[in-house]
Amino acid sequence: MSVIPDFDHLEAFAVRLSQAAADVALPLFRQVGLAEVNKYQDDGFDPVTEADKGAERAIRALIAAHFPDHGIIGEEYGEHNKDAEFVWVLDPIDGTRAFICGLPLWTILIGLRYRGKPVLGLIAQPYLSETYMGSPKGAFLLTPQGRQSLHVRPPRPLKDSILVTTDPYLFQGPEIAAVDALRAHSRLIRYGCDAYGFAMVAAGRLDGAFETGLKSWDIEAVRPVIEAAGGVISDWRGQDIGLYGGQVLASSSRNLQAEALGHLRAAGA
Amino acid sequence: MSVIPDFDHLEAFAVRLSQAAADVALPLFRQVGLAEVNKYQDDGFDPVTEADKGAERAIRALIAAHFPDHGIIGEEYGEHNKDAEFVWVLDPIDGTRAFICGLPLWTILIGLRYRGKPVLGLIAQPYLSETYMGSPKGAFLLTPQGRQSLHVRPPRPLKDSILVTTDPYLFQGPEIAAVDALRAHSRLIRYGCDAYGFAMVAAGRLDGAFETGLKSWDIEAVRPVIEAAGGVISDWRGQDIGLYGGQVLASSSRNLQAEALGHLRAAGA
Repeated sequence: MSVIPDFDHLEAFAVRLSQAAADVALPLFRQVGLAEVNKYQDDGFDPVTEADKGAERAIRALIAAHFPDHGIIGEEYGEHNKDAEFVWVLDPIDGTRAFICGLPLWTILIGLRYRGKPVLGLIAQPYLSETYMGSPKGAFLLTPQGRQSLHVRPPRPLKDSILVTTDPYLFQGPEIAAVDALRAHSRLIRYGCDAYGFAMVAAGRLDGAFETGLKSWDIEAVRPVIEAAGGVISDWRGQDIGLYGGQVLASSSRNLQAEALGHLRAAGA
Repeated sequence: MSVIPDFDHLEAFAVRLSQAAADVALPLFRQVGLAEVNKYQDDGFDPVTEADKGAERAIRALIAAHFPDHGIIGEEYGEHNKDAEFVWVLDPIDGTRAFICGLPLWTILIGLRYRGKPVLGLIAQPYLSETYMGSPKGAFLLTPQGRQSLHVRPPRPLKDSILVTTDPYLFQGPEIAAVDALRAHSRLIRYGCDAYGFAMVAAGRLDGAFETGLKSWDIEAVRPVIEAAGGVISDWRGQDIGLYGGQVLASSSRNLQAEALGHLRAAGA
């Protein structure tokens, strides 16, 4: 007999996890003298803060206490029981550069895989008291004022669309021409948002978001939010992003997705 | 006899002006169906929202009621009595693109000229309940939790510095090579902040900020905040930015400013 997961309970637990992470991270945001460590010293600037590690420890402790048979994949502390029926996929602070720059657009990303498929995701920005959630029960924004449904914005062609990405200089090789093509054919590309940009697509504020080099913990929490809000997400070839990330494009409609993918493919990215 | 302006009173009035602007703008932030008008239809994308115009009208009405002999220069409604002893310089919504994208980094900019010199400035982000103020009385951040002093971060060389600008594709001609040089010689350039990036320099979160094509209302409110927080601001040739804007660089120290200016000059921008 197959048991349907209790998504009400799992949603509430995901929110509790994000609050535990926020309790660690928020007091460290904008603190002078924050310890920074370069994870990849020969590969540019990728700071890991005490906030990042402490937040992931707080999340892991709660999962271990309440769901000891669940697996965990986290950016900071690796994999545990990764083939379990339920696996939590964690980026305790997405946008560590934004965090270090004092910009309130970093997020806590918590995704849940059920039998190998991403089914629930949460994008939380605690300085803004915003939590964007997607699950089989729908997509919604939680704030201290309450809960509201999330819907992508009405479809429009690429030439009228605003897209978002984090850093134009993260793209390499044929990706550069591909992103140039998107810029040339869209209304505007906005920069500097990390996963918060995907939340803005789900909330109907932006038409699309794209990134490259994403890890599973960068995108698994995002996917259910986009899809439950009525949006589309795929890799740059239009394929399922699966469990790995890489080049990702999300948008508010199938037509816009197809149009943007056409430009990406034409440039050979 | 020369009368020294009452800056306590003027600071409080500037905060009142920004609150009046916020009362108009904030309810329109993230509203679906927001009217957008392209101001420069043949010059790219520069939306002016109802929020922008309504906020400036609210500010102008308060100035007219309380200081009818003061001058006003505003982005939306032009100049009034611009050679007065006191002139308010207004950008009711700086970062209209951020506003339209649902990103809470747009700001209300209110500057005050006294006898032709910028003496007081305010950068407010009402969604975050943050007001960054600079005047002869110092630099501080006002939040619902109180008032705290602002200080730029300790000096460090460019190679260890994080700079911020809004959009890498706003730079043209020799500016492109100049900004490439800054990127090559700094630790990181962060994008997407408009005037909020300058506030982060004053708050010690970022080492520097640079922009091009600024108008007086984009920068006059910023300058007193940067300077009162201990920072340096000039044009890209190291000259006083005066009352006009254009190419602007701000940083946390004279040494960093000189190092960054050296790269800008070497590229002939």
